[in-house]
Amino acid sequence: MTSHDSPTDARRVIGVDVGGTKVLAAVVARDGSIEARHERKTVLSSEDALLGTLDEAVDELRAGHDVAAIGLGLPSQIDQRSGRALASVNVPLQDVEVRERMRRRHGLPVAIDNDANAATIGEWHVGAARGARNVVMLTLGTGIGGGLILDGKPFRGATGRGAELGHIVVRHDGSVCGCGGRGHLEALASGLAADRAARTLYGERATGHELVDKGQAGEPEAVEALAEIGRCLGAGIAGLMNAFEPEIVVIGGGFARAGDLLLGPAREVVSREALASLRDLAPIVVAELGTDAGVIGAAMVAFEAA
Amino acid sequence: MTSHDSPTDARRVIGVDVGGTKVLAAVVARDGSIEARHERKTVLSSEDALLGTLDEAVDELRAGHDVAAIGLGLPSQIDQRSGRALASVNVPLQDVEVRERMRRRHGLPVAIDNDANAATIGEWHVGAARGARNVVMLTLGTGIGGGLILDGKPFRGATGRGAELGHIVVRHDGSVCGCGGRGHLEALASGLAADRAARTLYGERATGHELVDKGQAGEPEAVEALAEIGRCLGAGIAGLMNAFEPEIVVIGGGFARAGDLLLGPAREVVSREALASLRDLAPIVVAELGTDAGVIGAAMVAFEAA
Repeated sequence: MTSHDSPTDARRVIGVDVGGTKVLAAVVARDGSIEARHERKTVLSSEDALLGTLDEAVDELRAGHDVAAIGLGLPSQIDQRSGRALASVNVPLQDVEVRERMRRRHGLPVAIDNDANAATIGEWHVGAARGARNVVMLTLGTGIGGGLILDGKPFRGATGRGAELGHIVVRHDGSVCGCGGRGHLEALASGLAADRAARTLYGERATGHELVDKGQAGEPEAVEALAEIGRCLGAGIAGLMNAFEPEIVVIGGGFARAGDLLLGPAREVVSREALASLRDLAPIVVAELGTDAGVIGAAMVAFEAA
Repeated sequence: MTSHDSPTDARRVIGVDVGGTKVLAAVVARDGSIEARHERKTVLSSEDALLGTLDEAVDELRAGHDVAAIGLGLPSQIDQRSGRALASVNVPLQDVEVRERMRRRHGLPVAIDNDANAATIGEWHVGAARGARNVVMLTLGTGIGGGLILDGKPFRGATGRGAELGHIVVRHDGSVCGCGGRGHLEALASGLAADRAARTLYGERATGHELVDKGQAGEPEAVEALAEIGRCLGAGIAGLMNAFEPEIVVIGGGFARAGDLLLGPAREVVSREALASLRDLAPIVVAELGTDAGVIGAAMVAFEAA
């Protein structure tokens, strides 16, 4: 057995991306390529049931592959010191010792991270932000997640709870956010904001998804509603540019499929709000890895732990 | 001559804090103590005249002290790659190779930094943020400067222009900022914002300084005007807390003398706008080093270069 065949050589790991609707697990190589994948619905009935789903996904993938570590991307606030998921909005993980529990169950090194951090790390290793040392990423889904690469490494704040970029205030005393705050970027520019705009235009059952479809079909009301959301997004991006001086801003998540309907108006606001010497440094681009960003990023975090 | 006496041992450096009204230079020891100081008015007539003032300050201090390096805190956007001051609001330094020019003139290692970054580094080494690994500092003067310590070191962005925390957007489409943007923290919560409020209340010749005096005397209109400025400050601080998860937020600069007249209302807004798991982590405190923060921080940057 050469060192290349040894599982401790960390040639492959398992990444797991836990979303509110599905769990995507994959065997991932160092170059970010996916060698096997396993997808199932997220079980939301209880903490044990959810963690059981993750165990099954890992067991199935390990049956066919030597892996050196496990990385989990969770839709949760993380405490990296203790390896706990402190709080989660869409899954039943409230103050759970996820890292230690998974390590004991599977006998492998385990790393955990916030899902948006994981997606950012994925895009940084093998996606739109490849090669950059300073990256801001926003994931536009139901809410808005954020991730930061600063001075060439992931930044997570003092204990791992940081980079909640969806909760910067961009309109002081503005619309109420899911977290209880007001005028947060998430309240103004998330998929839920698009749902709200859709209902105003098209009635109670309309969704943000339809709003994007109608915008892409060129319907003026939808185009303008998306432009207004994009302008709020731009105000948030500009503030983040002035704070971080990133080399690139990556926009991911399902709602990013609105593309230039959002990013065109966002760029116009950025050109007014970002400082002259900063605004031309950083292109604002759509993520490249799509729904695989999180699972690839979770795997990259696992390689760090291996 | 023992190694302790050698100038290359970097026991002392010169820090220079260049402000819009005065230049403060000092011989500073490793523990941050000031062994000699030199203060004079900032000469604003030309770039050469200003740089000449800095040269004289350094020459005078070197006459009596062995120093190993020079550190400059400049009210400028800095490019750390080239050592240039790219742009300045209140002094005649536009696209100047300050670092190389000073190094040639004085034959010593020279470091340069933005003045708010320097003040932050000073407070971090020997002031209110001593011992913390993640620090957000705002300096409330005519404008608002910002500084960040992240993961135990100063953060300056991709090229050194970062941490312009006065230019995060907190009221999208709000009041016009000196930079041309709208609703930036600086437009809402700086000394200039206090001047504006003072003029509204007390007529054309009133200043923010008087507003603070009247607030401290308990005049209700002044107290409420400062509270409104404090609430905007709080919206900015909350967003920065959610983004960075700092262990401490330090408020410095001349306008910080308003103390709890600003910080009380700011803390109230932070308790609503910062995420539950983050807001209790970081105290919001007034800087400790007063007007010496910048010169001490510039010296600490010089020790890095020595």
